[in-house]
Amino acid sequence: MTVRIAIDAMGGDHGPDMVVEGVSLALARYSDVKYILFGKEDLLKPLVKKYGLGSDVVDIRHCSEVITNDTKPSAALRNARDSSMRLAIDSVKSNDADAVVSAGNTGAYMALSKVILRTIKGIDRPAIAAPMPTISGMSIMLDLGANVGSDDNHLVQFALMGEVFARDLLNIKKPTTGLLNIGVEELKGSDVLKAAHQRLREGGYVSNFKGFVEGDDILTGAVDVVVTDGFSGNIALKTAEGACRFFHSELKRLFSHSILSKIAALLAIGGIKSFKEKVDPRRYNGATFLGLNGVAVKSHGGTDALGFSYAVGVAIDMSKRQVNDHIREELSKHLAADLEMVADKDMKVA
Amino acid sequence: MTVRIAIDAMGGDHGPDMVVEGVSLALARYSDVKYILFGKEDLLKPLVKKYGLGSDVVDIRHCSEVITNDTKPSAALRNARDSSMRLAIDSVKSNDADAVVSAGNTGAYMALSKVILRTIKGIDRPAIAAPMPTISGMSIMLDLGANVGSDDNHLVQFALMGEVFARDLLNIKKPTTGLLNIGVEELKGSDVLKAAHQRLREGGYVSNFKGFVEGDDILTGAVDVVVTDGFSGNIALKTAEGACRFFHSELKRLFSHSILSKIAALLAIGGIKSFKEKVDPRRYNGATFLGLNGVAVKSHGGTDALGFSYAVGVAIDMSKRQVNDHIREELSKHLAADLEMVADKDMKVA
Repeated sequence: MTVRIAIDAMGGDHGPDMVVEGVSLALARYSDVKYILFGKEDLLKPLVKKYGLGSDVVDIRHCSEVITNDTKPSAALRNARDSSMRLAIDSVKSNDADAVVSAGNTGAYMALSKVILRTIKGIDRPAIAAPMPTISGMSIMLDLGANVGSDDNHLVQFALMGEVFARDLLNIKKPTTGLLNIGVEELKGSDVLKAAHQRLREGGYVSNFKGFVEGDDILTGAVDVVVTDGFSGNIALKTAEGACRFFHSELKRLFSHSILSKIAALLAIGGIKSFKEKVDPRRYNGATFLGLNGVAVKSHGGTDALGFSYAVGVAIDMSKRQVNDHIREELSKHLAADLEMVADKDMKVA
Repeated sequence: MTVRIAIDAMGGDHGPDMVVEGVSLALARYSDVKYILFGKEDLLKPLVKKYGLGSDVVDIRHCSEVITNDTKPSAALRNARDSSMRLAIDSVKSNDADAVVSAGNTGAYMALSKVILRTIKGIDRPAIAAPMPTISGMSIMLDLGANVGSDDNHLVQFALMGEVFARDLLNIKKPTTGLLNIGVEELKGSDVLKAAHQRLREGGYVSNFKGFVEGDDILTGAVDVVVTDGFSGNIALKTAEGACRFFHSELKRLFSHSILSKIAALLAIGGIKSFKEKVDPRRYNGATFLGLNGVAVKSHGGTDALGFSYAVGVAIDMSKRQVNDHIREELSKHLAADLEMVADKDMKVA
């Protein structure tokens, strides 16, 4: 099965050169993929040549407009009809592409994706989901910032989508799920969290619900899927990113502490390399707008070509493994079950 | 000036032995301090002897009851009149002690402290404040979990208290303050955050307001004081703790990667030691319930004697540097200014 990936080639802090190089790196790693680059033809043509991308795998679609980081989401929705970002998303809607990747303005990208692709039936709001490194491997956290406030219904939907995502993307057969809170006791936290906890415990929406988890469980890998609202999720994600920078800086200091420690750095080069790889943020690049009719992946704006190629990889995996179809299947089971429940109640009333 | 510290000797996961040893370590570090140990006399007497604490510096006050980790805050408030925790807090209220330290049940300790000590006039709710390690040194974050929801008024009060705390405890003359959000743009976040942002920007409640900060700014040390509500603060704190454990585990793996990396560990021993010290959670032990009439410091329940001695150190510093008096001074300035504003308005109306 050949997968077609739409690329917003104008997004990102480093412009189309980084994006096109990223596509060339992804091309080397994934077979059976075709790319459609949306952007200014006069900029893209020389880049496609520079990175040796053949016309058999890469198409260019000229767009006259660009959404910048300063564009407000509302302005992106009203104007910018011929922008690379909008047309790339449109191509998923019209089924010319299976997935879209952009490193551009997050707010505009989310707003356009929501309006153009719309949410899957049974999902009220999309959530931003991404993998995180843990002591034992990787986990998934969502929502990372698509929504500021969430009710129990949204959190239950995030949990259901998170489980499917972990199963398909991380290859975990029966992923464990936890709800992020400020304590593991059932009486802790807001009413919304308590309601979501009860529904996840009793409703069968996920197969292996572990109850509440705390912030320190995220990176230790206590569960495979961490469910939270967009505010807390964003705070947790960015705190972890800051911690990563903090430890990088400490590690540097550690190995420049003395002449002996500089020699130590040379001896430990293998370990240092595998450590750096494990926490390299580029490897975790590519956050998914989960819950939409179509795959939309957001790359960090400041990433490089290697990082961008990972985001493209997420879009390819999401498409090949049919994550959205599996979310729909799970939802239809529960919608059917909920309908049965209603029917049962009606019977009793009757 | 001699400072008197009340110790709940029965709190903590490792019992009175850890606590009394912790007091002995604090005794060695701080002069002009007297300790009152609240707890079961038959347990404490042998421990005081074991750690060689003289009756000139340590008093024992017998209490017949103990609040355990299972005690609900409501039960602690209703019953447990003769508990070590309650009587230790009472001694601050009656001015027999300047500060109280407990490693016991956080919920009960917070509830009792609030009811017995009450909040400073002008402060609606206490906040939990604690220092955090950063790339450049240390910062303060509050609230770390005393409150689940906060309004803009609470956040402004936290900011005011946080600045005084950073000035007095971290010796920073003009601390910078940031409000934790999921973006630095003024239009991001909840209405409560936007209102708090505006008031901090215009109200002069803190001397050096830097606007919104994000999760990654906490450990990089972008500001000296990070202000947030108790939910996000707790998530961020625990995520950072989890990150610490994650990196410890990775560092261990790094140095056991090969025989060469094991030799590297020996060569880098100095740097490793100073890194471990910098991130040692015991050094950051001691969270303050800021905003009460009296100093109440909470030690981690699972800490050891060294960690407990750091919590005692926070209580001593808080008392010696008269943090609460300084908070009252700042508040009275703003209360006076707010009254003037009201008077000005009245004049205009008249």
